[in-house]
Order: sequence, then C-alpha cells, then structure tokens
Amino acid sequence: MNSNKDIFTPAVASMQASAIREIFKLIAKDDIISFAAGIPAPELFPAKQWAKITNDVLTNTPAPALVYGVTEGYVPLRELTKERAKKLGVYNEEVDELIMTSGAQQAIDLSAKVLLEVGDGVIIEKPSFIGSLNAFRSYGAKLYDVDIEDDGLNLSQVEEHLKNHKNIKFIYTIPTFQNPSGTTMSVNKRKALLELAKKYDVFILEDNPYGELRFKGEAVATIKSMDTEGRVIYAGTYSKTLAPGLRVGFVSARKDIVDRVVVVKQVNDVHTPVLNQMMVYEYIKNYDYDAHIQKCANEYGEKCALMISEMEKHFPEECTFTRPDGGIFILCTMPEGVDTKEVLGDAIENKVAFVPGNTFMADIDAPSNIFRLNFSVTTKESITKGIKILGDVLKKYV
Amino acid sequence: MNSNKDIFTPAVASMQASAIREIFKLIAKDDIISFAAGIPAPELFPAKQWAKITNDVLTNTPAPALVYGVTEGYVPLRELTKERAKKLGVYNEEVDELIMTSGAQQAIDLSAKVLLEVGDGVIIEKPSFIGSLNAFRSYGAKLYDVDIEDDGLNLSQVEEHLKNHKNIKFIYTIPTFQNPSGTTMSVNKRKALLELAKKYDVFILEDNPYGELRFKGEAVATIKSMDTEGRVIYAGTYSKTLAPGLRVGFVSARKDIVDRVVVVKQVNDVHTPVLNQMMVYEYIKNYDYDAHIQKCANEYGEKCALMISEMEKHFPEECTFTRPDGGIFILCTMPEGVDTKEVLGDAIENKVAFVPGNTFMADIDAPSNIFRLNFSVTTKESITKGIKILGDVLKKYV
Repeated sequence: MNSNKDIFTPAVASMQASAIREIFKLIAKDDIISFAAGIPAPELFPAKQWAKITNDVLTNTPAPALVYGVTEGYVPLRELTKERAKKLGVYNEEVDELIMTSGAQQAIDLSAKVLLEVGDGVIIEKPSFIGSLNAFRSYGAKLYDVDIEDDGLNLSQVEEHLKNHKNIKFIYTIPTFQNPSGTTMSVNKRKALLELAKKYDVFILEDNPYGELRFKGEAVATIKSMDTEGRVIYAGTYSKTLAPGLRVGFVSARKDIVDRVVVVKQVNDVHTPVLNQMMVYEYIKNYDYDAHIQKCANEYGEKCALMISEMEKHFPEECTFTRPDGGIFILCTMPEGVDTKEVLGDAIENKVAFVPGNTFMADIDAPSNIFRLNFSVTTKESITKGIKILGDVLKKYV
Repeated sequence: MNSNKDIFTPAVASMQASAIREIFKLIAKDDIISFAAGIPAPELFPAKQWAKITNDVLTNTPAPALVYGVTEGYVPLRELTKERAKKLGVYNEEVDELIMTSGAQQAIDLSAKVLLEVGDGVIIEKPSFIGSLNAFRSYGAKLYDVDIEDDGLNLSQVEEHLKNHKNIKFIYTIPTFQNPSGTTMSVNKRKALLELAKKYDVFILEDNPYGELRFKGEAVATIKSMDTEGRVIYAGTYSKTLAPGLRVGFVSARKDIVDRVVVVKQVNDVHTPVLNQMMVYEYIKNYDYDAHIQKCANEYGEKCALMISEMEKHFPEECTFTRPDGGIFILCTMPEGVDTKEVLGDAIENKVAFVPGNTFMADIDAPSNIFRLNFSVTTKESITKGIKILGDVLKKYV
C-alpha cells in the first residue's frame, strides 16, 4: 500500500505548490520588470548594521548565538517584542502570551495546527494570501470565502457561513493593507466582526504583516486591541519592516493557545535560529527602528503614488484598482470574463509581470479577472516604464 | 465550544512539553556539572570563520541573504549537500530528491506530516529521541516501541508489530550512535530491517545526526545506502558537526515524498533562513570541513574514554552502561525498580545532572531505570569531578 500513490494524507496529497512561486520561476529567466514581488525593498534592509552586529556577536559571544535556544524565543527579543506589542495593543499580559516564530508563516501554520482537525472550517477573505490558505488546507480544513469590500469583509456573508457551518473554528483576516487587495477594514467592521466571533464562539486569526507600513491616513486599531477575552490570535512579523529572509515573526494569543504553539514548535524546528533573533534585537536596541519604518513607509508611499498616477494615465478605464494607505500592494480588477492568467502570459512576452488573481482564491483553478501589483521593490523608473507597457497589454483585453 | 478546553486537536491537546527542557530550566539555576546536554562542544564551533563570512556577505552581497529564498534551499548549499550525500550513499539521484530543512527536527516533523493521518502507526526504538516521538504524536500517530539490543533493534519485536498492526506507516530509527543509547545497529540487522520494511510495505525513517562523529571502529553503511527503491527517508543535519543553533538540516528521499515535503515546508516557514545556509556553505567551501569533523570526533573520543574510565572507577557495579564508538551519549542502566527521575533530584542537590530515562519513552510517566550521560560539552576536569560525585549518588540506589 505504501509503495503506490496513496501514501500521503489526503490533505497533503491535494495541495498544490504556490502558483506565485511558479510565476517567479517563469520571470526569473528574463529582463522583466516585475510587479509580482511580495517583499520590502532590499536597498532599505539595514545590511551594514547587521554586518557589524553579526561580526561583533560571532567574535565576542558566539556560543549563545550558535547553541540551541529556548523554543519561546531569544529572551531579550521576546521581551522587546512584548513591549512593542503592548504599545500597539496586541499583547495584553493579563490574558496573552507571546512566542517568537520563524516568520509569520510559521505563526499561522502552527496556530492552525493546534486548532484544526480534518473537516474543520475556516472563513477566509476572497481574495487572500495563498500561503495561509495552503497552511489551513494542509490540516484538511474546509475554506469558506467571503468577499472583501472597500471597507473590509462582507459581514452578512460572514454571518451566513457561521450560521450554516458549525465546523468553523476561526475567521482568518488581514485587516490592514490586505494582501492582495491593499484595502483596510473599517473600525466599525472590526468591532462588528469581533461581535460575530463572540456570538458564534469562534476565534479570529488576525494577520498583520503590513500594518506598520502606513504612508497615508490615520491608524486604525487592530482587532486584537479590541479583544478583552483572548478571542483574537495575532500574527506579527519583522519580515516586512526589516528583512523577510531572517524569518523572524511572532504570535500573541491567549496563554493556553501559545502554550500549545510552543509544544508544536518544539517538535517543528526546536526554535527560530538565535543569531537571526539577535540581529533583529541588536538592530532595534542600537538603532532607530521607528525612524527606519517611517523611512520605508515614506518610500513606499512615493512609489505607490507614482504607480497610481501612471495607472491613471495608461490603464484602460475598464480596469479599476484600489488606492491603499499603506503596505506594498495594489489590486486591479479587469472586466468580468477576462482571465488574468492569460493576460500574464501576454505581459511576460512584453517583459512585465504581475500576480494573477486565481492564486489568491480558494479555487485556484477557476479563472479570475483580478491581479496584484507590487510597488515596493521596483525602481521608480521601472514603475513608469512598466506601467505604460502593462497598460498597452491590458487594453487588448477590454 | 471554542472558549473551553476542547479547542485543541486531541493529538495536540495530549502533548507534553519535553521533559528534557524542564530539566534544563532546573539545572540552569545553579553551578551544576551538567551531563544532560545534547549538543556539540561550543568551543569547537567555527565562530571566527563565521564572523568573517557574515561580515563579507552582509557587506558585499546582502540582498540574496536577506530576501525570501526558495523553499528547496539555497542552491549552492543544496548542491553541495547532494554531493556529500551521494558520497555517503544517502542520495541516489535516480530515485531521490533532497531539500534543505530548518534542522533535522523539521525534516522529521514534515516527513511525518505528509505521511501520518490520525491513528496511523510508527514503530519506534525504546528508548528514543523525544523530539521525534512528540512530532509523531502531534499528528495523532500511535507509537509501537521495540527494545534496542547491543546491535540495534530487536527484529522479532519489529515483525510482531508489523504483523499485528496494519496501520503502521514507517519505522523510525537512529541506527548510528543512537540517542540516547549510543549504540550502533549491525550491518546484518540493517539489511534485515530493510527486508522487513519491504515485506510489510512500510517506510523507514533513518535519522542520522551523529553518524559522522565516529571516533572508534569501522564505518557501518547507512540503511539508506542499501535502499534501491526509495523506501528509506533519510534525515541529515549540520547541527552536530557545525552548530545546532543555525538550524540547517536536510531530507533525502524518494522524489514524490520530497515534493510533498516542499509543499508543506512552504506553508510552514517558507524557507530556512538563507544567511544561515550561506554560513554553512561558505564554511564548507572555504575551510576544511572534513578535518573539522575529525577534530570534533577526536575530542569527543578522548572525553568519552575519560568518562568511561571514571565510571569504571566510581560507579557501582550494578550500574551497567554502553561503550559507544561515536556520537555524544552514553546510556546507563540501574537495577530494575530504580526510578532515575528520583535519582536526578538527589544528583541535582549534589550539583550533577543527567537526563532520566522516562523522557525517552513512549510512556513518559512510567518510572525508568535508565539514564543518559553526555560527554561532548563538559570539560575533562568536570567529567572527572562530576562522575565521582554521580557515582556516590548512584551507590545509594543499588
């Protein structure tokens, strides 16, 4: 029985590799202007400071950086992360605990692992981040999708699912500068969503990788900050403000939940590499991290404004798009019936790339008329050049 | 329903934090001679070389070290690891693929994740490495234990389980310098074990973190090297030869299995931090890694010989122990009825620590008369001093 194709769990057997990853393989081959990325701008990484930090640590006190660390995280970074999280209202020491993870991806994966049995349900945004959807799928979860409006989730669809599906364990949302839409959920909707979660006794998994990268408008309170009873599991990260390759994130949640996340993390990777956690800690301790975040946000704000003004000039008017106040993404919507996967093929031939909408859907095989643009990585020159080319491609499909 | 204690999956709810970890908290408080560790000697880490490597990388080409990497691993390290694995006979390019993981722990956890549904069975060694047992438990697996003899697993017990339990998916073994016993499975038993796996159509998960640290005797072929049909999943690591805190390991297995491990790793931590993989790669490329391994093995061989000669002098004759040819552990057996957890309390009062046997068992709550000693970390002076103290403590229990 083991020798044939039935050796894998049904959940894992049915998983597909991320389509975004396949696109990256496609576009890595050529001199292509890529709006497909999902990362901060590498020239903003504090690499020089880290060269000094790693050199100091590995020369003067190498052992703690290279032996096993505790599963909960490098103590000074964990304490500092708690302090910052407390200021942001996403860590309430009365009810919460906080554990450092190998990126927010692991925060989401292990939170799902402790909660989801095969057949359990998760409410997701449509569109949403494929990495999270696949994590839920890997435990055999059923996904129930809900449209995103300009001010966040369609709440009547949320309640409809909660009424009809008693298997739902939590609602997964990226309420601020959502991936891929760039939209932000309104305060009122956040409050109402939390009320719904209480009424139907489910958790909310709030994923907030981009929240600190605001370049316009007023800060909106996190859902976690409105939560008094430990109903919100909060996934945070240093990936988008410092560097994604370090893989340093965290979960802040009710103590009993974090206690279980610790136990499954211990058998997953024992701990997040200590040197990487030290790099984050020493950087924040010795340099001006808040100024760094502001600098990144300003830069992304300029690039976003430039991209939107070029889109207004060159895109066909049938293509609508979001106007984010922060983060790194803009979502575009083509007329019904356009398959943006097909458009991508054409775009790549013209040396421009984006991520087509199907990759953000529960059903990855159905055609989608939306697509995602990233504005953080490309240079301003390439934004100007690439958006014009893309506009010409899009005009053929309206 | 979610608010109460039933929120976790039954598998995760029943897991216990590693008892070893609890012991570390206990012994970290005082000036204790610890034989409880499970790590290589920190003074042997190539920290100076890494200070130079990280400084060079982060100064000259920081972006690739800090952006997202591919899930399969940093390409140059993956290629180099394949080359080394080929030489060791644990990677057969005809049938196998190889993926870099965040330590061998992740190699084991994700291999288990793709194979194990709730209720599936795993044959394990008694005693065995708690981190792996808990990983299997976290997916709801049933564990069937088999005694270890001087030359490895009791094969008739293995076959008994395979006959009686049709749910068994794989046999988990650390055949070389086993943790905690330090014993090595004979070539004949390895061949016979592989035949049993074929006969009953199950996989073997071969975990080999210590295999390269041989200080005595002749190398014994890995089970993976005897495997022609992709029946052995091999977990390797740089943790015990370079540094555990980097969290860099790998899986070599049949292509379809590694393909699924890639998919679940992508949703678990996206990729192992690239900087850490570069540190391993640049070290091996620029320095003499094989000489480094030999130096470590020599050092551990001297410490092991010293520890055994001190044990022969000071331990009560009722306490028997293994005489390993490599690795970092010696296993001791006290007379039936002695609970080594109780002995540990006494030992700690006398400023010496070890790991009691219950932590290596499927049933962690049952008393055990065995305990594990580590000889890689403690100085020779402390070995001499600590073993004498421990001998006096043990004499009270025979």
